[in-house]
Amino acid sequence: MIKELQQQVEQKIASIQWIQEPKGLYDPIDYVLSLGGKRIRPVLTLLACKLFSGDEKPALSAALAIEVFHNFTLLHDDVMDRADTRRGKPTVHKKWNDNTAILSGDAMLIKAYQLLQKVSSDKLPQLLQLFSQTAIEVCEGQQYDVDFENSLDVTLAQYVEMIRLKTAVLLAAALKMGALIGGATEQDADALYSYGINLGLAFQLRDDYLDSFGDAAVFGKKIGGDICCNKKTFLMITALQLAGEEDKKDLLRWMRCNDVSCFEQKVEAVLSIYKKLQIDTRCEEAIHNYFTKSVESLNNIQLSENKKDILVKFANDLMGRNS
Amino acid sequence: MIKELQQQVEQKIASIQWIQEPKGLYDPIDYVLSLGGKRIRPVLTLLACKLFSGDEKPALSAALAIEVFHNFTLLHDDVMDRADTRRGKPTVHKKWNDNTAILSGDAMLIKAYQLLQKVSSDKLPQLLQLFSQTAIEVCEGQQYDVDFENSLDVTLAQYVEMIRLKTAVLLAAALKMGALIGGATEQDADALYSYGINLGLAFQLRDDYLDSFGDAAVFGKKIGGDICCNKKTFLMITALQLAGEEDKKDLLRWMRCNDVSCFEQKVEAVLSIYKKLQIDTRCEEAIHNYFTKSVESLNNIQLSENKKDILVKFANDLMGRNS
Repeated sequence: MIKELQQQVEQKIASIQWIQEPKGLYDPIDYVLSLGGKRIRPVLTLLACKLFSGDEKPALSAALAIEVFHNFTLLHDDVMDRADTRRGKPTVHKKWNDNTAILSGDAMLIKAYQLLQKVSSDKLPQLLQLFSQTAIEVCEGQQYDVDFENSLDVTLAQYVEMIRLKTAVLLAAALKMGALIGGATEQDADALYSYGINLGLAFQLRDDYLDSFGDAAVFGKKIGGDICCNKKTFLMITALQLAGEEDKKDLLRWMRCNDVSCFEQKVEAVLSIYKKLQIDTRCEEAIHNYFTKSVESLNNIQLSENKKDILVKFANDLMGRNS
Repeated sequence: MIKELQQQVEQKIASIQWIQEPKGLYDPIDYVLSLGGKRIRPVLTLLACKLFSGDEKPALSAALAIEVFHNFTLLHDDVMDRADTRRGKPTVHKKWNDNTAILSGDAMLIKAYQLLQKVSSDKLPQLLQLFSQTAIEVCEGQQYDVDFENSLDVTLAQYVEMIRLKTAVLLAAALKMGALIGGATEQDADALYSYGINLGLAFQLRDDYLDSFGDAAVFGKKIGGDICCNKKTFLMITALQLAGEEDKKDLLRWMRCNDVSCFEQKVEAVLSIYKKLQIDTRCEEAIHNYFTKSVESLNNIQLSENKKDILVKFANDLMGRNS
């Protein structure tokens, strides 16, 4: 079913005439939306709507609004992070320039609202409120992420709040919007939102985990990227908390070493401290806890077990598990 | 009455708790909204609402949405144009950095939608549609402005379309939104929109005019800024069209001269060609025509002459005339 919903998202994206005049504004939008990706968020919107109403079509525009919004954040984040590639292709600010990425991104945010406005007008105020609230939270999450780069005393609670804002709320809102369009009760929509938040947190922590302990071939990125750029992830924050005086001194010393020539050594040294402190196990536990919380949220929802199983399977697939 | 509405805008801005956590995101928003300015757009929204309903208060949130949106465009435009100051103060990307200007700008665009959503829900779909349409047009106008910088064959029609999108539609939409909130008929709201478009065009052409023929002391900027950076304004486009072979060659030669040391000579030479070709008179005529069209649009509106006089006076004041 997920594959089929994915195809519907692709078809809907392909059906829209993204390119208009001035081409300098619209070509990059078409480019970034054509890069593909798993379309996780719009698929969740369609899935939620279908589970509650039997039909996903009323949620198509809202699903696309979520996807266009998500791609807007990628465009602007890539400028801020000076990222050169995205999905194996040059980022918009690389292929064009910074100004293009800023302005086309702005247009995408507005386009997202235009797409959202196509939902039935009785549901518009509620969906709009949720969408804007989520959008502003994603901005807040990005700001905390930037702030944390230059801070050494980020707590675990602050970090989890940051990834909740930056990553989880959009997954959760995608689900809740689909549920509301599908006629779910406020209570069921909120339970689904909770499923999304905890799944989003588990997913982001898994990303942190794989960046240090993954198989480079499967992960698709080089191992240790977060370590090299001193990211205060779950792993590093926990390590700094648990480390004895010597290990802590070592970790801080490696974080001051930002020369590319020492990166290989740095990754090796930090990983060995992580392993000594059993940070991998700690992280696995946290992932497991959020994942369990996510699936448990489904208990409160008025849906058949068959339908809930689809959501459990989706969660397992997203986490790279075969349930 | 305008002064009083201006004060209401300031009070409304002051009443909102702009600064929240994370401060890195919200401080710049508070900063840019505190810089002041004439608040032309929100005043027009309040004025239009008051003229049709006798009360401006129902339009306060929409007026603020327009002002926050306008300031969002300034934030991002200043990054793109590398402008260092705005209203005599450092721009956000100068006081903080580019990333802050991008992200805080994004948050302002979302905030604008949140403010707009406070209008009564029966009017929300129509206002939202108008707001998004206008917002995307402003992006298109900015893109054309960027495109025209590197083009030598911009026609007058293309230029007018660019300033219509970049400047006039927001003035017009500010008026139309206020009118709709105030209960105006669609026809009256459209006539007011037309008043706004033509007033916006006249206002922008006057800005072009003053940049070349104004009194530096009154204009508040150095004369010839547009000439120095080769802006294809109404003046330059008309001059290139009317110039004989020699003058055209001269104009093109000066446009290739981008060394600061030659700017004084460049401004003097281009101005003397403008005067020879009577470009100042042409521009005055165009301003007069748009201004007349603007005021004529009021004929079709079902409002008392007293009320229309307020709009005529506003237009005259905006154009720096004493009616």
